[in-house]
Amino acid sequence: MTLTLTPIREIPLIRPGDNLADILLSRISSNLISIQDGDILVIAQKIVSKAEGRMQDLTQVMPSRKAIELAALCDKKPSLVELILQESSEILRTRPGTIIVEHRLGFVCANAGIDHSNVAGEGSDVSDWVLLLPVDPDRSASCIRERIEANTQKRIGVMIVDSHGRAWRTGIVGACIGLSGLPALADMRGEIDLFGFTLRITQIAVADELAAAASLVMGQAAEGIPAVHVRGFPYPLQEGAFQDLIRPKEQDMFR
Amino acid sequence: MTLTLTPIREIPLIRPGDNLADILLSRISSNLISIQDGDILVIAQKIVSKAEGRMQDLTQVMPSRKAIELAALCDKKPSLVELILQESSEILRTRPGTIIVEHRLGFVCANAGIDHSNVAGEGSDVSDWVLLLPVDPDRSASCIRERIEANTQKRIGVMIVDSHGRAWRTGIVGACIGLSGLPALADMRGEIDLFGFTLRITQIAVADELAAAASLVMGQAAEGIPAVHVRGFPYPLQEGAFQDLIRPKEQDMFR
Repeated sequence: MTLTLTPIREIPLIRPGDNLADILLSRISSNLISIQDGDILVIAQKIVSKAEGRMQDLTQVMPSRKAIELAALCDKKPSLVELILQESSEILRTRPGTIIVEHRLGFVCANAGIDHSNVAGEGSDVSDWVLLLPVDPDRSASCIRERIEANTQKRIGVMIVDSHGRAWRTGIVGACIGLSGLPALADMRGEIDLFGFTLRITQIAVADELAAAASLVMGQAAEGIPAVHVRGFPYPLQEGAFQDLIRPKEQDMFR
Repeated sequence: MTLTLTPIREIPLIRPGDNLADILLSRISSNLISIQDGDILVIAQKIVSKAEGRMQDLTQVMPSRKAIELAALCDKKPSLVELILQESSEILRTRPGTIIVEHRLGFVCANAGIDHSNVAGEGSDVSDWVLLLPVDPDRSASCIRERIEANTQKRIGVMIVDSHGRAWRTGIVGACIGLSGLPALADMRGEIDLFGFTLRITQIAVADELAAAASLVMGQAAEGIPAVHVRGFPYPLQEGAFQDLIRPKEQDMFR
């Protein structure tokens, strides 16, 4: 079956309190897509965070002593570093411009996924506003999914993605940070290959593969395609949890 | 534009010396796909390696002292560890069952990408044969591309992919190991976002995003879909090099 990924165009700027599910439904319909059973919607973290009001005015953040020290080391605003610390469970590495953390959600990323771009608050300098990740992206995905399923009477999956750097490769790639109604991993352990061998490594991070695919379609920020419709996902839709994608610390060789 | 990824079905078992480009052309045509300008073919490393005769009979490999010591530590065959050492420029981590290396091609992966499954040699126990990565995957991609372009008179891209684990996330995902005729990175440095900010991190690893997307369609080994046809890649096709995806050592915080 062919896998198709279609940009959902003309999504308006999202504001706190917006009902993202309803906006997506309306845009899907105006993009002439009709939701079918088994379809998946992939949504950029940015618009989920905005709808959930996760903008923060840096001028209202009081940095701790630890944040002030780390900020000097990393050449960042102390108030921003304070938020990075609040959003993280561990600092892994620091260098000028970058703080690599374990986010409170469990994944490793730069600057706790806090984003400066495309954020505007009310009546204040745009450069003072940043955007935090959703509080609970699996739950965000689940809420959006519930509303769209109720509206369409179709069984779908919803995934929230962000862009992450990698330890040893350049460039960012799309990565899943939350999902509902689709598996994070496809567990092929014990599958037999063409010559009768048992495959050794057979857990496929299908949610991350789909996140990368959808991010390719979302493209550059300036173009503003924060949601993608997916048809033909080649695995059965079943309940998944983002946490399945997190490598247990005792298996981590690179911390 | 919609991105579509279509499995190229019924590719026969590939043997050393097979002309992969011709086999792909024939299968593409029998899958009722007509190649257009801007299309990309994503090919699994395994069939490229087989066509190039990269199978090795482990009983013919003489392990060095270093390989014997490391094999005991990692609970692997000394002859296999010898090949892993030959294919690697640096050993990063070892633990029972796994050796994480910098491959001679520059990327970090487990066991130098040497594969045990679906490899059969002539007249010898199948379990003694392994498959090494292509000698020069960019060149492999370029050769396949040249022949398909000559045959179709269309301008295409060709990419070779393998599946890699990640430092902090579970499961494997498709990753580019060689390409021709498409960019590895889309360099968005300096792009202006919706509120006039200059984006900070804007190199997108588009080849890896496409590799992940295609791997999703390739799915599990048992199903045997080692090539995928891609239409609607949202970046201009231009010459790229796999090496662009390798993080320079001086920027590596996790070695």
